Formats: sequence, C-alpha cells, structure tokens
Amino acid sequence: MTSPEQLRALVDEYLDGLQLVPELGDLAEAVRYGFEGGGKRVRPVICLATGEAAGAPAQQVLPAAAALELVHSFSLVHDDLPALDNDEIRRGRPSMWARFGEADAILTGDALLAEAFRQTAFYPTPEVARELAEATLGMIGGQHLDIHGEVHDLATLHRLKTGRLFAASVGCGLWAAEVSVTDQLPWRQFGEELGLLFQIVDDVLDEDGYFAIHGADGARALAAEAAGHAQERLAAIDADTSVLGEIVTDLAVRTK
Amino acid sequence: MTSPEQLRALVDEYLDGLQLVPELGDLAEAVRYGFEGGGKRVRPVICLATGEAAGAPAQQVLPAAAALELVHSFSLVHDDLPALDNDEIRRGRPSMWARFGEADAILTGDALLAEAFRQTAFYPTPEVARELAEATLGMIGGQHLDIHGEVHDLATLHRLKTGRLFAASVGCGLWAAEVSVTDQLPWRQFGEELGLLFQIVDDVLDEDGYFAIHGADGARALAAEAAGHAQERLAAIDADTSVLGEIVTDLAVRTK
Repeated sequence: MTSPEQLRALVDEYLDGLQLVPELGDLAEAVRYGFEGGGKRVRPVICLATGEAAGAPAQQVLPAAAALELVHSFSLVHDDLPALDNDEIRRGRPSMWARFGEADAILTGDALLAEAFRQTAFYPTPEVARELAEATLGMIGGQHLDIHGEVHDLATLHRLKTGRLFAASVGCGLWAAEVSVTDQLPWRQFGEELGLLFQIVDDVLDEDGYFAIHGADGARALAAEAAGHAQERLAAIDADTSVLGEIVTDLAVRTK
Repeated sequence: MTSPEQLRALVDEYLDGLQLVPELGDLAEAVRYGFEGGGKRVRPVICLATGEAAGAPAQQVLPAAAALELVHSFSLVHDDLPALDNDEIRRGRPSMWARFGEADAILTGDALLAEAFRQTAFYPTPEVARELAEATLGMIGGQHLDIHGEVHDLATLHRLKTGRLFAASVGCGLWAAEVSVTDQLPWRQFGEELGLLFQIVDDVLDEDGYFAIHGADGARALAAEAAGHAQERLAAIDADTSVLGEIVTDLAVRTK
C-alpha cells in the first residue's frame, strides 16, 4: 500500500503537470495559484487511498482526486471574497482576490470549478462527475446557510459545508475504482464519519464551532469518538484499509 | 421537424420542471431566478435542432441543452457583478446581485455551473461534459481578456466569449445524438459560423464592437456574409437541416 505522504506527492505531481486549456491565457497563473497553495491535499489523498484499498491503481484515480482538490480550491477562492468571508490571507499568503483582484478571483474560482469537471470527463462513465456535482451543490448550499446565519444546528451546517466533499472523496474513489453500488455501502458509512472528524478537529484548531460549544476537552472527546467510529467502519470493510486507518489517526491528532 | 419556437418551449418546460438538489435550501430561489429570466434560449434551441437534425429525439438532447443554458446563465450572473461589468439590470429586471446581494450572486453563479455539470452527468458517456467544460474554460478566458482590455483583435475575443459556447451548442447536440467524431466535421464548421453571426448582430443592436468599427451598414453586411456562410455549411450536411437554417435566418434579422 502507498503511504499518505506518497499519495500526497502523487497529487502534487499530477497537479503540477496539469495542462490547462490554452484559452485561459494569462488567467492560468491565477488558476495555478489557486491549486498550488501547498494545502494538505486531504480530500484527494482520501480519494486515492480509497481507490487503492478498493483495488485501483493510483493512475486510474488521480483525475477524480485532482477534481476534488480543484473543487475545494474553487470554494476557498470564492469564500475568501470580500462579499463573503472577506479573508485577505489564505495558507500564509495573500488570498486570491488580495493577490489578483476581485474580478480575476471570481473568474479563477469559476475556472477551477470548470477544470474540476473537465477532469471528471476523463472517465468513461459519468458517476464521478455526478457525485462531484451533487457534493459541490451541497457545499454551496452550506456556504449559503453559513453566511446568512440561518442555522441553529451546527451538525447540519458542517454536513453540507465540509461533510459533502469528504463523503464525495470516498465516493469518487469508489467510482474511479469501479466498485459497484451494492458494494459501496460500508465505504460510504466510513466517508460520513470522516467529514465530521475533520470538522471537529478544525474547530478545535480554530477555537470556534464545536470548540466554542463543547470546550477544548469536550471537542477533543467528540473528535476521538468520531475517529473511533471511522475506524470501526473501516474494520467492517473486506479490504486492506490500513492506509485509510492511518489517515483517520492523522486527522484526529493533527495540529494544523 | 420541430420549429424553433416549439424547441424553445421544450427548453422552458424542462427548466421549469428541473428538480434542484434539496441541499441548496433557500438559494434555490436565486438559482431559479438565474435560469428563468425569459432569455431567448438561443443556445439550447441550437443544441436541440442539431440533435434532431442528427436523428435524436428531443428527450435525449434536453439535458445537454439545459446544461448550455445553465452555463450561459452562470456567466451572466458573474459577469454582472460589481467587480466585473457592474450591471444592475439584466433582461429588464434587477441583475442577480442587485436582487439578491453580491454574496448570493457569487454562490448562485457557482450553483448554476455545478448544476450544468449535473445535467451532463445524465449521459452514459462523458463527451457532452468534456465539450461543455472546455467551452466554459474558453469563455472564462474570453471574459478575462475582455475586462483587462488586452485584446486588439475583436475576432479573438468574440471567438472565446461568445463563439465557444455557440460551437459547443452544436457540439453537445452532436454528442447527445451520438454522432461519431468522423461525421461531426461539417456540423462543427457550421457551429463556428453561428457564433460569429450572433456576435455581429449583437454588436449592431448594442452599437459597439463590430458596429463601432465597421458602422451600421458595414456590420450588417458582415452579418449577412456570416449568415450566408452558415447556410452554405448547412447545405453541405447530409441531413434535414431546415430548422437550423431557420435559426440562422432568425439570428441574422433579429432586432433584440
């Protein structure tokens, strides 16, 4: 099995080598700025690890993995805009709009999203594209809820904003590996737990959300519980899921 | 054959009945505002007419046609934003951001684009999605050129901003009708002429672009020439392209 670090290197290499359509012209620089930001690549690594555990070589899963990272990048670029979260800094450097201006940040987010679907079109059948489109729509619905502060239920908000794309990271890995619908259920139950785990730890690190409600110890306990559930789900899958298990452990104890 | 007016009614009916994903929540109202704007539906009508001429029932082509209209709607919503063209009025009513605010206008454009790719995922193979993704990226590249005023060649700008999606309207109709690559060439030559024709007439009506350079009579003459080329291309296709011919005539003489 390929380690999470090796999988991450594969994602970086694939994205570095990604040939954008020439018609993007000068906007290509901003588009690359959007996906070369040195993120943790959590979603594509989960996708690749799922695909490999389900029996597919990384080469077969990489377009789906890249598409997930591109959708994640698109969402960061648009969420950082002044009209939304108004963030000038992202991963220690200027956010897209702070660096390239609002107009190009809007267009760049659009291009990242369109490029994601160009990646999913490398598959002979439409399941990866459908899974990603539905997850993206759910994520957008979550961001809409978030900015309007209409949500009293943190779990609902996070299930949309974070959980949908995490679940799709597992789902797209399964489709890319050509796992049949009937065999997907236990994997998908694992995917549901993953997003929750990620979000709780995120809130602990940002000192908001679950942290604000449950306190540091309470939130850490919830994260440990979610990690336990995720490992139980993995144990129910008839495959070598050791790398996914390692990812769960890493997510539970991460400090950035 | 089905008349352009009947095809347009089919598009409206399909979009009216379109089931959005429930996770969009309250944002669904804005998303519907984005594609129910009473536009001319030029692109989806061309897509349906192409598909029918190539032997496919409308039912088979409608998701592709709707996807084209959704991409067009997405581009209008984002182009109207204050950071881009800053238009408060679109088709005689408040533009998306003027009606729903900038944040929701950004999210709504995103949702229209993602919904377009959800529609293309209804096809068993990825060609419609790939064609649409590439056209969308070209269109975004064109908008980037436009706002930065880096273009001295109007034809290049319009080939991207308008032409790519017009060409894809023909291309997606061909893929939806399962026309083989080798049989697509004459149709695609027709598609190239269509976008140019539309843009020249658009400039005459808006009194800019080709109108500003060539004057009213000069631009009208160019439009007539483009319409003639388009009809010649149709004549070279071994199929009943009478409805596409009617669309060309309508585009050449339109007054709005």
